[in-house]
Formats: sequence, C-alpha cells, structure tokens
Amino acid sequence: MAKSIYAKAGVDIDKGKKAVAKIKKMVAKLGVKEIGKFSGFFPLKENLNKPMLVSSADGVGTKLKIAFMMGKHDTVGKDLVNHCVDDILVYGAKPLFFLDYIATGKLEPDAVSAIVSGMLEGCLENDFVLLGGETAEMPGFYKDHEYDVAGFIVGIIEQEKIVDGKTIQKGDLLIGLPSTGLHTNGYSLARHILFDQLKLTVDSSVEGIPGTIGEELLKVHRSYLKPVNELVGNGVVKGMAHITGGGFIDNIPRILPDNAAVQIERVWPVPEIFNFLCERGKVGKREQFRVFNMGIGMVLFIDKNHLSKVETILNESDELFYLIGQVVERKGKGQIKIK
Amino acid sequence: MAKSIYAKAGVDIDKGKKAVAKIKKMVAKLGVKEIGKFSGFFPLKENLNKPMLVSSADGVGTKLKIAFMMGKHDTVGKDLVNHCVDDILVYGAKPLFFLDYIATGKLEPDAVSAIVSGMLEGCLENDFVLLGGETAEMPGFYKDHEYDVAGFIVGIIEQEKIVDGKTIQKGDLLIGLPSTGLHTNGYSLARHILFDQLKLTVDSSVEGIPGTIGEELLKVHRSYLKPVNELVGNGVVKGMAHITGGGFIDNIPRILPDNAAVQIERVWPVPEIFNFLCERGKVGKREQFRVFNMGIGMVLFIDKNHLSKVETILNESDELFYLIGQVVERKGKGQIKIK
Repeated sequence: MAKSIYAKAGVDIDKGKKAVAKIKKMVAKLGVKEIGKFSGFFPLKENLNKPMLVSSADGVGTKLKIAFMMGKHDTVGKDLVNHCVDDILVYGAKPLFFLDYIATGKLEPDAVSAIVSGMLEGCLENDFVLLGGETAEMPGFYKDHEYDVAGFIVGIIEQEKIVDGKTIQKGDLLIGLPSTGLHTNGYSLARHILFDQLKLTVDSSVEGIPGTIGEELLKVHRSYLKPVNELVGNGVVKGMAHITGGGFIDNIPRILPDNAAVQIERVWPVPEIFNFLCERGKVGKREQFRVFNMGIGMVLFIDKNHLSKVETILNESDELFYLIGQVVERKGKGQIKIK
Repeated sequence: MAKSIYAKAGVDIDKGKKAVAKIKKMVAKLGVKEIGKFSGFFPLKENLNKPMLVSSADGVGTKLKIAFMMGKHDTVGKDLVNHCVDDILVYGAKPLFFLDYIATGKLEPDAVSAIVSGMLEGCLENDFVLLGGETAEMPGFYKDHEYDVAGFIVGIIEQEKIVDGKTIQKGDLLIGLPSTGLHTNGYSLARHILFDQLKLTVDSSVEGIPGTIGEELLKVHRSYLKPVNELVGNGVVKGMAHITGGGFIDNIPRILPDNAAVQIERVWPVPEIFNFLCERGKVGKREQFRVFNMGIGMVLFIDKNHLSKVETILNESDELFYLIGQVVERKGKGQIKIK
C-alpha cells in the first residue's frame, strides 16, 4: 500500500494498528478481552454493602528520561502500575483495573510494546487487570524516541473500611517500609546533580552503589500491596502515606489529622544513592525530605499497642520495616519534625 | 521563601501547589471533595443486578497545537471530557466519573486552571463528576507554553443492557448525528494543509467558513449523551460507532458483526472546513473518511422498522440527524463502501 497522505503529515495509522495488534496479542495471553475498541469492560463482582470506588491518575515523571537514555522501556510501565496501586492502597482499596495513556511523536511499536509488557507484568504481580488504553501519535510534541505515559487505576473498598487516618492520635507509631530507590520522584533534581553538575553518565559507577547509575535510577517503584493487605486485613493500620512527589513533608500531612504532628528519627539505613545525591548536590536536610523518599516509600500509622502484632505480621511476610517515629501534639504551623 | 534547589532543577513544587489550590477552589464550588490527595472517592450507589464498569482513556491529539496557537486552553478540556463520554456512550454506558492527567514542561497555573475549568464544564454538562487528576511538571519534555492532556472515564451499565452491535443485520439502517467540526481527529493533516502547504494562520478567514480558521478548528468535540440516552432508553439502538481517529473506515467495523458490511451515501451536508481541507489538500475520497469525521460524529445502527420512532425521538430532542446508509451482506474483505 502506498504511504497515505496522513502518513506524510506524520501520523501513521497502520503503524498504530501494528502497535495495537502487538498489545492485543500480549493481552490475549492473559485472557483479557476488548482492548482496542472504544472502551474496556470490567464486570463488578464485589458484593459490598456500600461500595466505594477509589481512583487515581499518575505519571512516571522525568524518570522517563533515564529510560530513554538506557533504551529500556519496560520498567517505567511497571513503575506506573505500582505507583497507582500504592496511591489507592493508602486507603486500603483493592485494585480492580488499570488503563494507560502513551503519547509519542512517532510510534515505535517495539518501545510501546515494551512499556505495555511492563504494565502487564505490574498488573499480574498485583493481581488485577490492564483494561485498555490510548496510544497517541503526536508529531511535533515529543522529541525523537521520547514519549510520555500516564496511568489510571480504579479500586474498590467497603465504605466503612476506608483507612482514612481519622483516628490517628498522639502516641501512635510510624512504621516505614523501605523503598527500592528513588521510585518515581526527584528525577529532575537527580539528573541535574548527576548529569549536569557531576558530568556522570548512565554508565558511570559510584562507590557504594552496585551496578551503574542508570541501573540504580531505573529500579522499579515497588508495590506495597502484599504487606499492607496483610496488615489492613488484621485491622492494625490507622492511616498510611505514600511517599511520592513532595516527599515526607507534603505526603504525611495528607493523612494526618489537623491537630497532630509527627516526630521522625532517621534510624533507617538511607540507601547510598540518596546520600550521594544529597552530599554531592548539597541538598539541604528539609529539601531532601521534600524531594526524595530517602529510602522509605510507605509510612504506616499504628497504635503503639499493636506494635508487636505488626512486627509479627511483617516478619512473617519477610518484609523489612523500621519504627521511624511517633505522633505528637501539633504546636504551630508545621506538622513534621525530622531529627 | 528562597527558591529551592528543586526549583533550580526546573520543578517548582510551590507553583504546583498553587495550581492545585486553584483547581480545588473551582472543584469545591461543585461540592466534590478529596481532590489533591492520593486518590478520588466515588460512592457507587447504582443498584444494578450485574453491574459492568465501562472505562476509556483518551487524549486530544494535536488539536492541542491549535489551543497553543490561540492561547485558549478551556475548550480542549471540554473536548477531552466529551470524547471520553462518547467512547463509553457507544455501549450505552452512563458516565460516573472522570480523571485527568496534564503534563507540561513548566507549570503555568492560569493555563492549567483554564484546562480544568473546561473539564469541569464538560463534566457538569454531562452530569457527572471530575474526581481527580495529576498535574505533572516535567522539565525538558514539552516546549515552552505547551502541554499534553489525557482523560480517563469510568461509566456503568447493567450487563444485559450493553449495546454491543451483535444483532446488527442486513437491512438495518445507519443514522448519522452531526459533528461540530473536526472534533479531536485529523489535526496533524489539517495543520499540514492549512499552515504548511497553504501558509494560512489561525487568524485567516476562508470563504464559506464563519469566523477564523483558529476558531473553526477549536470548535468543541460534542457529547452525544442526551440524544443517545433518549434513543437507548427507548430500546431502538442496536449498535453505535463514535467516529474518531480512523474515521468511518476504522470505527464502524469496531461494532459491525463479521458477516455484515455497510453502504454509506454521502447525503448529509459536509461542513465547509472538510471540503476546503480535502480539495486544497488533495485528500483522496477513502482517505477523507479515514482521517476526518466528514461531518458525522456518531453513527447509530437501527432496525428499519424503528425508523419513524427514531425520527420522532430525535425531532422532539431538536437533534439534527441523517439517514446515511444501510447494512448489507459482507462480500470480500472490506466492510465499508462509501458512494
């Protein structure tokens, strides 16, 4: 077939179809239907008394630039899924389905299917469904071999079981679950420090950090579904904060009652990448906790009387955790003090 | 406050907070809560026997470039909502809630709030909820004053009431509902013809087209919710196709049974913008119907015995419509013949 006039203007519908066909093939393997039509269908089988749908939209941010530099596109797909899972998990919600949006200047079916395969892997690991998505070819919007991705998640929970932080009070304890690295936040600053200031590349090695800088930066944003489900099922979590953009400083107050504050002690082993970035980039202490997760990706608020139960459950799940602080009475404007 | 080191790397968390605050204020007026936290909450009150959630993700495509050229950002927000509404409406689903993703290189709170105000307006007009969203500042991804947007919709329908096109058969009629213009498709080609080939600008005027070229191109993708709800409620629709990317050629087969084909007659008044683009851009007949909607944004399949009922309902709704073709037996590979 001759190249259509539309292709000349930069949009290749046939190539779009090829990308969709690749995705369909992968998705068919998982027994999901209807991708590539106008919408996706999800039969709601939950038999809840007062069902609450919980939904969130997210991107991967400039972590994508690392994927471009490495030519590796599956991990960002998984990042996106896990980020979304964690954003509804903080309320105790169970993920039902996920949709994606991938936008690029010129469709590269191999890159698109790598991204989607990462998403599929993420959905599988969290035991829910990739329901559909949109892949947009937008000439003149993105640089060659670059793209943006967004993810949308829908989960569900019984209304009265929502973990909303309302009962958090003075004396409660903060449990930190470790992150795998930067997750999906702080990449603009990290790239600025590593590549602009220090003139490193993704292939550089740094003492104390195994593998290359690129590998370290591409580590997948983890899902906290399994340990958190275990704890929530046992009724021992009063509130949670997913440490994403805005770090401890912006995310903890999202779940904290107005009259409460937290005192955090840096007792956990901060992964070397954060020490390196903060020392070499001269990032101030408060700024560190606003930009990076500093090694803690999820913070749980528990009653101090539940501590040993929580410890037992997390130990049985082979889950590392740290007692990182406590809730105190709020005095003044700030809600977070970090020692 | 001194400009933070993160701001120096190109991400301004405070500006992000300002944009969120603006959005919150607008959203609060509508009585929606929880925007700006990790997720949005939607209490599912529908009491259905076998509820099916129907979900879709979409973008606005390169229509955004027209918004950039015009410095007008509200209409694309509304485009996005209506596009999403129509994508689930083709199955008869009722919209429940919407989330957005806005990505830009450098946050401009005024542009972001204009986009969101358009989305809010679209949600209000379609009587459903803007539940939340993500606004991402991604230095180095987008040109100055540019952005990308994606929307995500969730609707619901009783499983047995899904309008799935399965009963479409030889002799059924095709009803076309008019579009308002290009809707959200064909903009790369339109821009190529108008701005690259013909050297026009958004301020140019063209005979037969009221207003400027920019105004014509920014016309809002309409929602077909009201007339379609009326028809679906009366049980007279067998299937629908939303004429978006891929035009008649790609979208009609999405709903057509494998053994059926359609014969379409160009009996409706094609809006002047399409004639102008196709003549001046030398777009071939088949290509026209693959790239543009050519004046028909939604195609409904009905039993011929229901024609007068359909006419009465649409006339009572003051809805323009055209009898544009019929279903015939499929012979060979193609499913669409346009006279």
